[in-house]
Amino acid sequence: MSAPHRILHPDLRARVMSPEDAAGLIASGTTIGMSGFTGSGYPKRVPLALAQRIEAEHAAGRPFRVRIWTGASTGPELDGALARADGVEYRLPYNSDPIAREKINAGRMHYVDMHLSQVAPMAWQGFLGPLDTALIEVSGITEDGALIPSTSIGNNKTWLERAGQVILEVNRWQSEALSGMHDIYYGTALPPDRVPIPLVRPGQRIGQPTLRCDPDRIVAIVETDAPDRNQPFAAPDGVAEAIAGHLLDFLRDEVRRGRLPPSLLPLQSGVGNVTNAVLAGLLEAPFEGLTAYTEVIQDGMLDLLESGKLSVASATAFSLSPEAADRFNAQAERFRDRLILRPQEISNHPELVRRLGCLAMNGLIEADIYGNVNSTHVMGSRIQNGIGGSGDFARNAYVSIFMTPSTAKGGAISAIVPKVSHVDHIAQDVQVLVTEQGLADLRGLAPRQRALAIIEKCAHPDFRPALADYVARAESGSFGGHAPTLLDEALSWHARFVRTGSMRP
Amino acid sequence: MSAPHRILHPDLRARVMSPEDAAGLIASGTTIGMSGFTGSGYPKRVPLALAQRIEAEHAAGRPFRVRIWTGASTGPELDGALARADGVEYRLPYNSDPIAREKINAGRMHYVDMHLSQVAPMAWQGFLGPLDTALIEVSGITEDGALIPSTSIGNNKTWLERAGQVILEVNRWQSEALSGMHDIYYGTALPPDRVPIPLVRPGQRIGQPTLRCDPDRIVAIVETDAPDRNQPFAAPDGVAEAIAGHLLDFLRDEVRRGRLPPSLLPLQSGVGNVTNAVLAGLLEAPFEGLTAYTEVIQDGMLDLLESGKLSVASATAFSLSPEAADRFNAQAERFRDRLILRPQEISNHPELVRRLGCLAMNGLIEADIYGNVNSTHVMGSRIQNGIGGSGDFARNAYVSIFMTPSTAKGGAISAIVPKVSHVDHIAQDVQVLVTEQGLADLRGLAPRQRALAIIEKCAHPDFRPALADYVARAESGSFGGHAPTLLDEALSWHARFVRTGSMRP
Repeated sequence: MSAPHRILHPDLRARVMSPEDAAGLIASGTTIGMSGFTGSGYPKRVPLALAQRIEAEHAAGRPFRVRIWTGASTGPELDGALARADGVEYRLPYNSDPIAREKINAGRMHYVDMHLSQVAPMAWQGFLGPLDTALIEVSGITEDGALIPSTSIGNNKTWLERAGQVILEVNRWQSEALSGMHDIYYGTALPPDRVPIPLVRPGQRIGQPTLRCDPDRIVAIVETDAPDRNQPFAAPDGVAEAIAGHLLDFLRDEVRRGRLPPSLLPLQSGVGNVTNAVLAGLLEAPFEGLTAYTEVIQDGMLDLLESGKLSVASATAFSLSPEAADRFNAQAERFRDRLILRPQEISNHPELVRRLGCLAMNGLIEADIYGNVNSTHVMGSRIQNGIGGSGDFARNAYVSIFMTPSTAKGGAISAIVPKVSHVDHIAQDVQVLVTEQGLADLRGLAPRQRALAIIEKCAHPDFRPALADYVARAESGSFGGHAPTLLDEALSWHARFVRTGSMRP
Repeated sequence: MSAPHRILHPDLRARVMSPEDAAGLIASGTTIGMSGFTGSGYPKRVPLALAQRIEAEHAAGRPFRVRIWTGASTGPELDGALARADGVEYRLPYNSDPIAREKINAGRMHYVDMHLSQVAPMAWQGFLGPLDTALIEVSGITEDGALIPSTSIGNNKTWLERAGQVILEVNRWQSEALSGMHDIYYGTALPPDRVPIPLVRPGQRIGQPTLRCDPDRIVAIVETDAPDRNQPFAAPDGVAEAIAGHLLDFLRDEVRRGRLPPSLLPLQSGVGNVTNAVLAGLLEAPFEGLTAYTEVIQDGMLDLLESGKLSVASATAFSLSPEAADRFNAQAERFRDRLILRPQEISNHPELVRRLGCLAMNGLIEADIYGNVNSTHVMGSRIQNGIGGSGDFARNAYVSIFMTPSTAKGGAISAIVPKVSHVDHIAQDVQVLVTEQGLADLRGLAPRQRALAIIEKCAHPDFRPALADYVARAESGSFGGHAPTLLDEALSWHARFVRTGSMRP
């Protein structure tokens, strides 16, 4: 059961214990900084043991809740188990777990949805309060006590530095070939001591391959052999392929006009089947020497790396299907020089996104006729996942692209609405909008010009007449004519959906 | 009438002509990049002559409209005159002129409201189209043809580099002592060639004191002797002083807790009497060695510099009252080493704002119970001025502070509403909200926690019961419970104001 070759530091080997014993070191009311980003590299046994302990305490009539900070989303053994146990009082900075989502939307868990680049620096600022425990998955510990990260970095560096005590999970399921793939930058500081981050190319290494942690602060080590939450991707459907087609046409045209280099600029992309369709399209497109500077490495990125089209990809985590994870683990050596995982404060840093000139490609829940985007709140109030890194990338991108099918729920919902019910990305940060209907290049357009372009190019034909009618009436009946709005009607499509299950009249 | 000592380059002296002749070099349908930022350093004679020419053309039945790019706001001789002549087809990136505002809100002028840091890089990207003419005010021309800027830099470097032809106004009203106060950074590039900007302190000089321009591209020079649009400031009233008081208490407390250094961090502040009250408060506060890294130097900054409390201020423009402008002009020598004007892509650069850790202090039109901020659109549709640099600073600040009186229009409007009618700053970017009622520290709070804090600390007592009632009903009647919202009611306060002239029931 033990895997001593993953723990080479002799003193630390003596700190191996059971998940239950490790969970016993965590007190109610404390804050735990956990590893984990997009289902990768999160601790898998101690959170489960903690959830069991919490359930036992609750059964005995004793309160027990904790505050959880992570990189981003994790897995059912962490967010799911702790939420089911009603053990989470407060959660940041991102969640995609369905049980936790229900608790949040039921008002039973406080959730702070943050820009992912800002989590570590804000933890250092101190206003989030003390961090009691760091609970971090690693893939190994070297003889001198350096920690070899696993499949995500997230905020691990900061949690290890800030926490009062450290608990490690050493997961032998993770490929040993991950060693050397990470780049941990130790040059951050609080102002007035911040200096330029010396990264000018996506593939550049500016740090060290391991995480530092004083062995004396490590109070427990748990050995695990458990897979990441690697979910199958749906194969791209016709809608995703149509969106990808419009976007690739746009990119080709920008190159032709001399507005993008033939190797494009570093790609950032969200996760999902639309993005995978874009990445699949790039396999066939006439671009060579591509690079990626993004949050997550997903299946399509591996394909592009294997094809030679993508020369290097930088991220903070993997987000692979089980098949792609197997493929990666079987040949991680081959990818090692061309994949770099960094702390999320570096993978998402506005300084670097602006400098590199990323092409940002993100999904959305809805956009409005002026190009404001809602990425998070269904019908304005129900949190889906969170803003994640989309704000870090969209505002600083060279071109900020948002992509979505034009309808949802079998056509009951229009992704293009008179007014979004929540705003994550203001119109200034939404430069290109793509649906399967077409692509609207909004750069340099004033609001009324944007409305025409979005309705014509992006809205589903079933909803175009109602949108055009709204605009026409708003232009005469609005308080101001810069971005005409009918206040009594602006959110009526959402209200109708809540009442009837459809935005259609 | 001539002031040859301001034009030392012999060939260029020969290109001096009348404003009318210079305006004759501008064709209808073309794009003009003009100097000007916050009423400082804008061209004052050629735009007037151009407006007269446009009026004559229109009177003769001939169409004549131009596209205007600037740094930010200008003066009545530019935006006012050209808008009155119906001569502006398209305007970016900021406007505060009342005549232009009316045309925009009447749907007669396209206005693109941009993040001010992004204007120059986006002009380089090319999608805004070609720039035909640069029309730039300078305070002098050296023997070798270098241009000494006047009271703003804005986008002048980029307009001079990108324009097909250059027209200069040499304004001898501007103090000759401005020479040496500017720092023009010539290290920007398009990706993939961008490199770190080597600025780590607000007072650091990283460029050169003059603007470059090939003399062969200068087609006209007009001599002027005209003041900037320097507007009197209202003395801070009790409301402004109360807001400043709450904010200064907060800053003192942050220093006491060790979360800010005793000399604070570089200050950024919008313009207005609330900000001036804060700056006046800093004169009496126990902070020494302050710095400012901001867009504009206003009266209060001069006072702080004179007092010795402020060691250095970096901006892209002045925005002074006539009295302060006289004071500045009379002793510009004295201020020269402690004031730096930079291009707005540097004064507002996200890389630098994040690195320096600015304390951002901006005003607003309204905020909602979750902390989203509307800075621009009255009742969701009528543009007031523009987002300006507030987004550059708020998202990247060390602490992002928004300040406002809790009511407007004699109490008819609540600055705290159930839902903002337009979003410029998402809740993530609004960390501290201050009114004369109090200060809400929103950092680390989830939406329902934010609502309680904002209603209790910031809302006017007259509107608190209605806000609390909305929240209570939203918590039970909302589609989702993360950020409870009543879709039928969320914008009803605005609709009521439009109907009745008051948000009060």
